[in-house]
Amino acid sequence: MQKGQMVYEGKAKRVYECERDDAYIVEFKDDATAFNGQKKGSITKKGVYNNAISTVFFDWLKQEGIVTHYIDTLSEREMLVKRVRIIPVEVVTRNVAAGTLASRLGLIEGEKLKQTVVEFYLKNDELGDPLINHSHAVALELATREELDHLERTALMINDILYERLHTKGVLLVDFKLEFGVTAEGEIVLADEISPDTCRFWDEQTNEKLDKDRFRRDLGRVEEAYQEILHRIQNK
Amino acid sequence: MQKGQMVYEGKAKRVYECERDDAYIVEFKDDATAFNGQKKGSITKKGVYNNAISTVFFDWLKQEGIVTHYIDTLSEREMLVKRVRIIPVEVVTRNVAAGTLASRLGLIEGEKLKQTVVEFYLKNDELGDPLINHSHAVALELATREELDHLERTALMINDILYERLHTKGVLLVDFKLEFGVTAEGEIVLADEISPDTCRFWDEQTNEKLDKDRFRRDLGRVEEAYQEILHRIQNK
Repeated sequence: MQKGQMVYEGKAKRVYECERDDAYIVEFKDDATAFNGQKKGSITKKGVYNNAISTVFFDWLKQEGIVTHYIDTLSEREMLVKRVRIIPVEVVTRNVAAGTLASRLGLIEGEKLKQTVVEFYLKNDELGDPLINHSHAVALELATREELDHLERTALMINDILYERLHTKGVLLVDFKLEFGVTAEGEIVLADEISPDTCRFWDEQTNEKLDKDRFRRDLGRVEEAYQEILHRIQNK
Repeated sequence: MQKGQMVYEGKAKRVYECERDDAYIVEFKDDATAFNGQKKGSITKKGVYNNAISTVFFDWLKQEGIVTHYIDTLSEREMLVKRVRIIPVEVVTRNVAAGTLASRLGLIEGEKLKQTVVEFYLKNDELGDPLINHSHAVALELATREELDHLERTALMINDILYERLHTKGVLLVDFKLEFGVTAEGEIVLADEISPDTCRFWDEQTNEKLDKDRFRRDLGRVEEAYQEILHRIQNK
């Protein structure tokens, strides 16, 4: 499958047309950004790890009946996915307080939340991806209330699946960000990627961070963390 | 009715015990603050206007079957209210984009929202009253999901009532903040105040601001705005 015209370049991926008019080729980059693009860098082989890690996670979800945009893995850095229109709402699911949730609400990082938190953020770099609620999303005509309920329910189902399976690998799923898209047929499917760029993964024994926080917070051993996650989830 | 011990002093009100053990006396102050207490000042007779204005609004709501903490107006600055435990969630309802909503979501101040927005904020000055959603409120054990749904529904009912009645007075209800409390019997009732301190009111003809934004934004004629609102809503 050959890449055609590039239709989108994001911070971590490029998206290309291809010979199938219902599909795109996603190419995973090594570029890393944080704090809404204010911090920039590169993580060796990140694109390779994230392509492989996302492949495993999309496969896990398919086994459990979750519909995703994933079709096939084409090469080390390339994934074939369904063409979708991305819904401009980032859906963040949190099991443990960390990052902005902890600082905004005065919680201690590492504190188990008394109930799983699902948050919507408006996907808009200029505005800094502000937190929104259902009524904002409807007022901004990003999605209907029923679609938002579907996103929230699906995020919670995905959380159950990934949390349990990662637990068997000794990994705590702290939180993660999902994006959804709408196919030409109008079906809402999970899109984007699931990787250490978009999730917080902590080693269950040591609480060592195995995700992009190592880059955000200059903790070192960044590439090794991505490699470790891939190694753990590929192990049977 | 004599004031007993002061149990709470907020930015705009003092709350006192009294001879009834199911009631408090609220005293409205002239102190004005904005931007989470960073701007401080005083508005002549504000306490008198807000006591009178809140009295009218609580009366309107009672006529329409909304349960509030209001019992009686005791003096120019004093109101007798039911004793409640305040739920630490500020409920903001918005019909028109203004203030932080406009800046956060990139909307133009004055733009009619395509759907009424209801927001929850954690009532916590130290944290700057952060925006929260249902799942945050449940995780923080501020309220149950059913209670939050009740707050949201009640806020929308109150919006319908106030919006329509203010319209007959030539006033546009742009947005407003409510607080709710729980009585000793466990009933959730509307508490706090409804005034130009907690609402945005615009003249329908001129779009002139008739609320605390005149103080926040140094627009002048602040006392006159509070007086004008009282005058309009007291007119039959």
